[in-house]
Amino acid sequence: MPQLGLLHGRAWTVLLGQLRRPPGAVCIRAVSSHSQVAEALFASQLKPYQEKSNFIIKTPKGTRDLSPQQMVVREKILNVVVSCFKRHGAKGLDTPAFELKEILTEKYGEDSGLIYDLKDQGGELLSLRYDLTVPFARYLAMNKVKKMKRYHVGKVWRRESPTIVQGRYREFYQCDFDIAGQFDPMIPDAECLKIMCEILSELHLGDFLIKVNDRRILDGIFAVCGVPESKFHAICSSVDKLDKISWKDVRHEMVVKKGLAPEMADRIGDYVQCHGGISLVEQMFQDPRLSQNKQALEGLGDLKLLFEYLTVFGVAEKVSFDLSLARGLDYYTGVIYEAVLLQTPVHAEEEPLNVGSVAAGGRYDGLVGMFDPRGHKVPCVGLSIGVERIFSIVEQRMKTFGEKIRTTETQVFVATPQKNFLQERLKLIAELWDAGIKAELMYKNNPKLLPQLHYCENMGIPLVVIIGEQELKEGVIKLRSVPSREEVAIKRENLVAEVQKRLSES
Amino acid sequence: MPQLGLLHGRAWTVLLGQLRRPPGAVCIRAVSSHSQVAEALFASQLKPYQEKSNFIIKTPKGTRDLSPQQMVVREKILNVVVSCFKRHGAKGLDTPAFELKEILTEKYGEDSGLIYDLKDQGGELLSLRYDLTVPFARYLAMNKVKKMKRYHVGKVWRRESPTIVQGRYREFYQCDFDIAGQFDPMIPDAECLKIMCEILSELHLGDFLIKVNDRRILDGIFAVCGVPESKFHAICSSVDKLDKISWKDVRHEMVVKKGLAPEMADRIGDYVQCHGGISLVEQMFQDPRLSQNKQALEGLGDLKLLFEYLTVFGVAEKVSFDLSLARGLDYYTGVIYEAVLLQTPVHAEEEPLNVGSVAAGGRYDGLVGMFDPRGHKVPCVGLSIGVERIFSIVEQRMKTFGEKIRTTETQVFVATPQKNFLQERLKLIAELWDAGIKAELMYKNNPKLLPQLHYCENMGIPLVVIIGEQELKEGVIKLRSVPSREEVAIKRENLVAEVQKRLSES
Repeated sequence: MPQLGLLHGRAWTVLLGQLRRPPGAVCIRAVSSHSQVAEALFASQLKPYQEKSNFIIKTPKGTRDLSPQQMVVREKILNVVVSCFKRHGAKGLDTPAFELKEILTEKYGEDSGLIYDLKDQGGELLSLRYDLTVPFARYLAMNKVKKMKRYHVGKVWRRESPTIVQGRYREFYQCDFDIAGQFDPMIPDAECLKIMCEILSELHLGDFLIKVNDRRILDGIFAVCGVPESKFHAICSSVDKLDKISWKDVRHEMVVKKGLAPEMADRIGDYVQCHGGISLVEQMFQDPRLSQNKQALEGLGDLKLLFEYLTVFGVAEKVSFDLSLARGLDYYTGVIYEAVLLQTPVHAEEEPLNVGSVAAGGRYDGLVGMFDPRGHKVPCVGLSIGVERIFSIVEQRMKTFGEKIRTTETQVFVATPQKNFLQERLKLIAELWDAGIKAELMYKNNPKLLPQLHYCENMGIPLVVIIGEQELKEGVIKLRSVPSREEVAIKRENLVAEVQKRLSES
Repeated sequence: MPQLGLLHGRAWTVLLGQLRRPPGAVCIRAVSSHSQVAEALFASQLKPYQEKSNFIIKTPKGTRDLSPQQMVVREKILNVVVSCFKRHGAKGLDTPAFELKEILTEKYGEDSGLIYDLKDQGGELLSLRYDLTVPFARYLAMNKVKKMKRYHVGKVWRRESPTIVQGRYREFYQCDFDIAGQFDPMIPDAECLKIMCEILSELHLGDFLIKVNDRRILDGIFAVCGVPESKFHAICSSVDKLDKISWKDVRHEMVVKKGLAPEMADRIGDYVQCHGGISLVEQMFQDPRLSQNKQALEGLGDLKLLFEYLTVFGVAEKVSFDLSLARGLDYYTGVIYEAVLLQTPVHAEEEPLNVGSVAAGGRYDGLVGMFDPRGHKVPCVGLSIGVERIFSIVEQRMKTFGEKIRTTETQVFVATPQKNFLQERLKLIAELWDAGIKAELMYKNNPKLLPQLHYCENMGIPLVVIIGEQELKEGVIKLRSVPSREEVAIKRENLVAEVQKRLSES
């Protein structure tokens, strides 16, 4: 399995290399051997890159830098997400970027091949974290924490085949909210779905739908359709494809590739093509075959309760019971959910953007117990917001509308029309900084006035403080509003107070 | 060199393993072979950890989780740092956690052995970033950016021997501010020192001093003392130890270990034991030997200008010209600086904590050119705040004073004294959430009132909304102030408005 992953990785590496050389990438010659590297350890002996061959200055495949513009968008989105998590009483937690390799193995099923391992440099075998859920479970078990509501925003890494257009990268942010602890059924689960609704609404991404299902219902369906237990996992991953390919193709895969009897596939098809609201839950309760299965009944009972709570929260109409939802990760044990955007973004003139799921999660009651020496379980439920895809949507929208983003927060620019005024400008700007005002100046001894004012207009800086011969003599400074181009003279000693007044008014 | 690093790494790994088993760590049996891992890929076949042997649940050596308490401290410190960077007009930037290995090699001199490499899993050879400076230079060269003021807060990784007591880890945060571009001399450099002063003052870490020197002055000293150029680097790293060991020991190292003629060492000693203010700069200008060296004169000229600007900024008295300051990294080309705390923290009753340097930086005019295919240079100057050490100090101080930290921001708790009120509580809390109010409730169908109120007192939640039979009948709810324990009945429909009013008053 890991070898397959490797080949797969190589194949797309080649493909991606052709598709995605960044605009700024340049080819230069590479260092020819490692002994050269060892030889040239000190700066004084360094060879510049241009003396090497075939070396491309780029970020690693599937990763990217975030430019100042992108950082502003990211900050805004993360603010919405984190504010919501805090609104629901979550505490922050941070874990290392890498874990002992053992911690991550056997948690991600078929996807384990996508884990980045660190090179063995002596000491422990380490891997980059694949999600924030397993480190959270490790934290709970290690510190014997039995109850915790935490959020975690951080990067995770997966050696996936990135489809850049969908906002998929090998390095990406996850924003997770989880509730650990033994509680009365479905109250925390309902809160997780409420949180997903709050965040997706606040981000104005257009209409969305949250599909829910339960691992126990899926297992029940497979059992009552006569699927042998050894095939549950394979059939489950076929079912999971129903949102991308037709039932006909899924059925074909089950029968031809996975060797399932055709009549079993047909029985499964009757179930997994169903989706609806709370009435579908009721209907499944009445199903003559499914109602005989204990696991399925437990799952249905929980879903019924979940829908009750969601109705009280006023979000039930955003949620659909979808029997085809399976979710890839191995650790889920009960309710699972996934939020999808329903159509193109709000404005008709925008290009449609296929973004798939933008949030997902579920219940994993067994994961913490796997780390506990006595197997003590801590039931958990949580969700993850797919912020990278949300970045893509928001970025695309801003591109479409040609929105301009301020990448600095500078409030005041300190300028002069005259030569030899650097020291005066430095004195002024230090005063502003010391008063907590965001200020910039040009790093030139003798700048011309016009470029200074242009810079303010380009950067959206609202105020300019101007000092010259005349002002210095009279003990004043000029205060210029960049949008209106109006200038007034104010007393030098009133500078900070006046600037603060102007800023509080705007 | 890399092999030496490895042995060194192993040696302290053993040591650390004995010293630093985390309190929550538990021993359980490990998986016996990798083929077992491959066999047991799916959850249904998973063996829990307790069936394995000798496996310790812990974070990787030299790393740690940040608990909710620590996260609150971290957030506060990072807020101060980032606010200051923004006050000085910096834009945000993010780069991947790993870079192509080639990007990092030959940048860190003797410390290159501390770089974490990723395992070769097919495709590119990658390494975890060692600092934020080299990725910044790579970004500038790759995107042909000639001018940029940016800040970057992110984790970096170094396979160092961690001395936990000093706040040194193998994974740690860096907070960097850099100014790239061709400008008039020393204006950006002076701003960097001003920023360090602002941040260290705002964090109330006690008295501090910023040592400055210039690589060209050091090189000039070595040249006029007759040191052969091939020994510059080795002698430089001896000089750098003067803040930890005596001149006698440094001299011994130079003469005995590094084979320097004793008279040369003595001449060096006359210089590098000097430190002082701008008058020392003037004095060195008059030095009969040093004034003959072109490089040294350039460095001294820049330092003179730097002190002029620092005087205007009002921070000159915080800065000391220290001829022993050398800084480890290879990429520095001009002025270098390092901030150290001068004594134990503010309060005499606290235990002294040796934290060494808390901020550092310098000018690196050649680094971007190393990445540019034509060698085009972009001069840069910057600084890095050692936030991990600052965390340690602040944490230690809070421990000493037994300060309690709120780990959530919850404003209102929704409680009931009665059974069968879950739905009413859910309805109430959804209203609060939808109004942007931070609220929690107990995940129990029938909680007792006292534990609900105790929870609020423990967590510092200021307000409780109480609903029961009586209130429901009368169309009111009770609003309880946790600190004063006063309760008032308010109309159900005024809930949100009343809560918002109370919160804005407190």
